[in-house]
Amino acid sequence: MARTVVESRTRTVTIGFDEPFCVIGERINPTGRRKLAAELEAGDFTTVEKDALEQVACGAMVLDINAGVVYNSNPDPNLTEPPLMRQVLRTVMALVDVPLCIDSSVPAALEAGLEEAEGRPLLNSVTGEEERLEAILPLVKKYDVPVVAISNDDTGISEDPDVRFAVAKKIVERAADHGIKPHDIVVDPLVMPVGAMASAGRQVFTLVRRLRDELGVNTTCGASNISFGLPNRHGINAAFLPMAIGAGMTSAIMNPVRMAEMEAIRAANLLMDHDANGGQWIGFARVIEAVRAGESFPEAARAAAEAGAGRGGRRRRRSA
Amino acid sequence: MARTVVESRTRTVTIGFDEPFCVIGERINPTGRRKLAAELEAGDFTTVEKDALEQVACGAMVLDINAGVVYNSNPDPNLTEPPLMRQVLRTVMALVDVPLCIDSSVPAALEAGLEEAEGRPLLNSVTGEEERLEAILPLVKKYDVPVVAISNDDTGISEDPDVRFAVAKKIVERAADHGIKPHDIVVDPLVMPVGAMASAGRQVFTLVRRLRDELGVNTTCGASNISFGLPNRHGINAAFLPMAIGAGMTSAIMNPVRMAEMEAIRAANLLMDHDANGGQWIGFARVIEAVRAGESFPEAARAAAEAGAGRGGRRRRRSA
Repeated sequence: MARTVVESRTRTVTIGFDEPFCVIGERINPTGRRKLAAELEAGDFTTVEKDALEQVACGAMVLDINAGVVYNSNPDPNLTEPPLMRQVLRTVMALVDVPLCIDSSVPAALEAGLEEAEGRPLLNSVTGEEERLEAILPLVKKYDVPVVAISNDDTGISEDPDVRFAVAKKIVERAADHGIKPHDIVVDPLVMPVGAMASAGRQVFTLVRRLRDELGVNTTCGASNISFGLPNRHGINAAFLPMAIGAGMTSAIMNPVRMAEMEAIRAANLLMDHDANGGQWIGFARVIEAVRAGESFPEAARAAAEAGAGRGGRRRRRSA
Repeated sequence: MARTVVESRTRTVTIGFDEPFCVIGERINPTGRRKLAAELEAGDFTTVEKDALEQVACGAMVLDINAGVVYNSNPDPNLTEPPLMRQVLRTVMALVDVPLCIDSSVPAALEAGLEEAEGRPLLNSVTGEEERLEAILPLVKKYDVPVVAISNDDTGISEDPDVRFAVAKKIVERAADHGIKPHDIVVDPLVMPVGAMASAGRQVFTLVRRLRDELGVNTTCGASNISFGLPNRHGINAAFLPMAIGAGMTSAIMNPVRMAEMEAIRAANLLMDHDANGGQWIGFARVIEAVRAGESFPEAARAAAEAGAGRGGRRRRRSA
């Protein structure tokens, strides 16, 4: 059974079939967030700090860090992104002690992140594209870190799930050539919007089961893609996540500052027997009560974590 | 692929692997509802009428009818329950045109119901108990109706899912001896409370998949059992239902007058590609909006059904 180990300075999170679902907070990413991009270019990390604290309070176990700002002053990300990645990582590590996921399309920014991050971060990502395989797999090997493998290749993203499975298999095989084990590969089978492709949900459930049974790898996805373009998106996401977890999905890159999705994940953990004595569920039920009484979700979650004193930390911490 | 056909006077509902999840409304049942029991003994059908209309408005596709009142005036249900079953059925059939599920522990009440009901009702239920098998299977055959098969036997309810599977298999085999086909058997694998048995969720998901793959039968359950004794029960139910649907569960006996659960089921239908063009989801999103604006769920659902004129009826109707 694949166990993907990620670490911060002091905390270990294991992604695995017998572990609670791993929530990777997606908020620290300037893509589509113009205000955050402008702040980062100006060297202002106020929003990064807020997003780091809020996401961890709401239940993120790992934080994705993307510094992909296209600077107005210097449009070459190969020059601007590596130092910005370092600064964002330092800012986040000074505030919270959770493992990080270093996310960039720029290999130099990934390597800067790998140098800067404490512990054992997750690398995001390699694809089945030849150039990307050649650039990223040596980094994975050199720094001995796990990597997200996205199942598209030089031909693009296939709508055929068998092709996406084949791409994932190719990445696992190519990684093996570099001495990288399947337990250090977390496959993203790519989630299409169900509004555009009616079979998108079933495809993912089938793919996740195959990836688990045939390749023995952990899986992740950009969960909210599934509901793109449809009304009441949180309702779709909140059903999709338990269904994906039931099919064997072990992590997602998502916004944890959303109560509906986090409630669904905690319920799914309970139903998968990944919540000993229902302790996490019972604690979360108190947060829900506070939110129904008028508090914001991050406030209520933070208050609950603080009231539990070391409890929240201990629960999340596997080794120290 | 099993297709279980149930019918009212004019409507057909098919329970099947390629059909939207079949919601069987559980409200018309005096068990644990002292006010309803007193009303029924007094010949007052006000609550029955309200429950019939509300459940159908909220999305019940089949209504379970249980008339199991222990009369204060005459404590022999063999005498009191059959005529009451007929009266409740007549009351409900005069108001709504959905297939019915005739539910009793008293064989004479089941037979009265079978005589009274129009169309092709579902019979609830046979178990693996010898006496029950001998009493119920001949009724199933005589009236050519589908039957709910509950996987307990003379030794009680086993905590071992393999034993529950074996009981279901025995019922299917015994039914075959009577000339009853597997597609007319809807197995209830029995849902334990996850608060009392941590593996309860996983057990059901595994059992449902086996029942589907090995016996080729449809499945149902008393869905809310899963959350018994825990806080924020709707949150657990709303994750359990999509996970069970993903595992292959095709119906549940449940309270449809609960928005969280119905939202989860509609989202799961969409994600299973059982909601052509997302039409049901988009309609339901409007109901959710109305509820968030202050309407009650049954009011908002009824208004949406009426606004859609014949639409709701046509969508639900498979043949006329």
